Amino acid sequence: MKQKVNIAIVGLGQIGNYLFNELRLKKKDIEIKTGKKINIAALSAKNINKKRKFKINKAIFFKNPLEIIKKKNIDVLFEVIGQSDGMSKKIVELALKNKIHVITPNKALIAKHGDYLSNIAERNKVNLEFEASVAGGIPILRTIKEGVATNKINKVYGILNGTCNYILSEMENSKDSFKNVLKKAQKLGYAEPGNPKLDLNGYDALAKIKILSSLSFNKSISKKKCLMEGIENIEFKDIEIANQLNFRIKLLGITDLVNNKLFERVHPCLVKKDSYIANVSGVMNAVILHGNPIGESVLQGEGAGPGPTSSALMSDLLSILRGNIKFPFGISGKKRKSILSYDLRKYSNSLYLRFEVNDKPGVLSQITRSLAICNISIERLIQIPDHKNKKASIIIITHRTNELNANKCLKSLKINRNILKIPTRIRLF
Amino acid sequence: MKQKVNIAIVGLGQIGNYLFNELRLKKKDIEIKTGKKINIAALSAKNINKKRKFKINKAIFFKNPLEIIKKKNIDVLFEVIGQSDGMSKKIVELALKNKIHVITPNKALIAKHGDYLSNIAERNKVNLEFEASVAGGIPILRTIKEGVATNKINKVYGILNGTCNYILSEMENSKDSFKNVLKKAQKLGYAEPGNPKLDLNGYDALAKIKILSSLSFNKSISKKKCLMEGIENIEFKDIEIANQLNFRIKLLGITDLVNNKLFERVHPCLVKKDSYIANVSGVMNAVILHGNPIGESVLQGEGAGPGPTSSALMSDLLSILRGNIKFPFGISGKKRKSILSYDLRKYSNSLYLRFEVNDKPGVLSQITRSLAICNISIERLIQIPDHKNKKASIIIITHRTNELNANKCLKSLKINRNILKIPTRIRLF
Repeated sequence: MKQKVNIAIVGLGQIGNYLFNELRLKKKDIEIKTGKKINIAALSAKNINKKRKFKINKAIFFKNPLEIIKKKNIDVLFEVIGQSDGMSKKIVELALKNKIHVITPNKALIAKHGDYLSNIAERNKVNLEFEASVAGGIPILRTIKEGVATNKINKVYGILNGTCNYILSEMENSKDSFKNVLKKAQKLGYAEPGNPKLDLNGYDALAKIKILSSLSFNKSISKKKCLMEGIENIEFKDIEIANQLNFRIKLLGITDLVNNKLFERVHPCLVKKDSYIANVSGVMNAVILHGNPIGESVLQGEGAGPGPTSSALMSDLLSILRGNIKFPFGISGKKRKSILSYDLRKYSNSLYLRFEVNDKPGVLSQITRSLAICNISIERLIQIPDHKNKKASIIIITHRTNELNANKCLKSLKINRNILKIPTRIRLF
Repeated sequence: MKQKVNIAIVGLGQIGNYLFNELRLKKKDIEIKTGKKINIAALSAKNINKKRKFKINKAIFFKNPLEIIKKKNIDVLFEVIGQSDGMSKKIVELALKNKIHVITPNKALIAKHGDYLSNIAERNKVNLEFEASVAGGIPILRTIKEGVATNKINKVYGILNGTCNYILSEMENSKDSFKNVLKKAQKLGYAEPGNPKLDLNGYDALAKIKILSSLSFNKSISKKKCLMEGIENIEFKDIEIANQLNFRIKLLGITDLVNNKLFERVHPCLVKKDSYIANVSGVMNAVILHGNPIGESVLQGEGAGPGPTSSALMSDLLSILRGNIKFPFGISGKKRKSILSYDLRKYSNSLYLRFEVNDKPGVLSQITRSLAICNISIERLIQIPDHKNKKASIIIITHRTNELNANKCLKSLKINRNILKIPTRIRLF
């Protein structure tokens, strides 16, 4: 790579702005560490006139990012638009084809098109780096690709979505409802103001799990449908009851190899209060990996926000400037295998089930009978009356049961008119 | 680097053995990940006939490791003898001068001669890698050099000695004495059977702190004397009282910049039971770093043992095989500054002080008077009588005070004949 490196930033939202500033601030530091002088040669955003902390030099501004590739001699391009397709995909594709290194924090793009894009990068002998796509500032991808490179990893799990973790922690702390806490999270910038759905329904965490899986197990990104449940149906009531039972509720992403089959999932879990993962609070992320011979390793840090994200983006830049040409997924795309999926129906857990029912004779017996028919045995049962409304909450902790039986049981109870809403199911970790 | 890479292992103790086996097991994996074929071309140990899990091929065995450099065409050499000087230094020096990459887990060597050796490596354009020297399998050095490369780090601390952490945890769990638990640790292989002093007195943790400092603050390794206290004087009594006060005792290594001055220290600390660091138990290590913009990051994992150590050694090997030529300390030796030391006398903490005294009138008043004279105010005082022996333990938790005053006070009490042994001082974190 030449001594003077031209950089383009495509997208000037919260992250693009922060990154722009970091690049200017750390110019000297980067030169000391890599021997390269960086030069911000092109910027692109939807709206040049949006209020920003810096004035955009019009000479390097492009409304259409694709123009940058034609008109400027770029060496490294940051894609910080954040779409899974659209312009994000177009500009990354075009850049790689033109032998430009690409750095992106875009998990949606990588989880969807990572295999395709990394092949283009490999063919053109440039880097496609995406450290910031998983767990913000925590260098978890670099750790898997390099730090524990020769370990046989068999499980990776963790708290991968700061928005959900903040909401669950804050519901517990403030004893407030999901709805109110979500509003608070939006005010504080921890949740998307417009449509926070992709964070709350588990989609964001699942994209990260898919990336972690690919790197950990040296495989292509799985396209199969996975178990994906978010936290939208968690009520304060659940947090309170979990608390009494010495549990906390966390949204976990988990991927492991079960008898050489791949099992990726995202769902809320009841975790023991004194466990490590239960004590990762607020917007923090944590990733735990099991490898041989390394044993259990834990990485924890701020999972989101422009600061930690920029930290990861900059680490990617330094890796490129130091001349570390690497396969985006650690090994060549040709050597990445595809792994059969584990049969979800066999997934076995103790379950926390909450039924909201009419307080009428026979309801409890109907529920317990359904459980018995489906071979699900009860470890614990709590009934909380709501005398005023002639209703009750029935909470059941089951012994271990598999998804097949649990689904069958919950399905059979669907027609029961005394059960007032879809039961809440939370798996024990 | 050529396609076939010749490797030498110098030292065939616990780690050398494990590493040898890993190299053989992961040969194929290494080829997939780096495109290089590795070949173990030379081995060296004091005694060829020692009982080992594998038979040494005499054709590649060298009693004198220095011969290897002359007689074999080595590309990468692992130094796993473990001395701070002697043959460890000689062979590393000779290898680097002969343009051979060196990988070592030897913290004593790096903390003492790291600057000198890294200069030789830089001059000869080869790597000197020592990921395994700090925190076993946790890729903390790589994280600092690469993962958070452009952050301004201002503090790094953690549990860096698995032996001490095991002993403190086990004293709490088994309610047993330091002496007995040390014996147990030696039996389990967690403490050196011969002379565990360097683990117990803080020397090992301080060597790691010096390496972490150098990398975090881009500075040369400090030669100055530091505050170094071990756990040899911690009694079960201290753990029990700490427990009652909602604390745990941990040996922490800490380095930070205070007003741009470097402050490195290792000493036991009282940490709040519900804090993260208090819950890192047994042989686990944990490193916490504060950086801007990354915020607080935590890395935790098994800190010692041949498995995690080999994992780190192998990650260094892969980095070299992938062609990542790097400065051993992240930046060129010429650019590494030296930083003034913080004045230890200003170090300010709340203190836990335990006095073993004769149960005579006036003793307590003498102690409290000395504290008052030195401007140390008391937050909490507990007196535990030992009627049978007419003795007592007096435990005092002070408000914040600096080392100057604390030392003055403890010195003034030295002549007090009713104080039966040197008081135990543990700083609150």
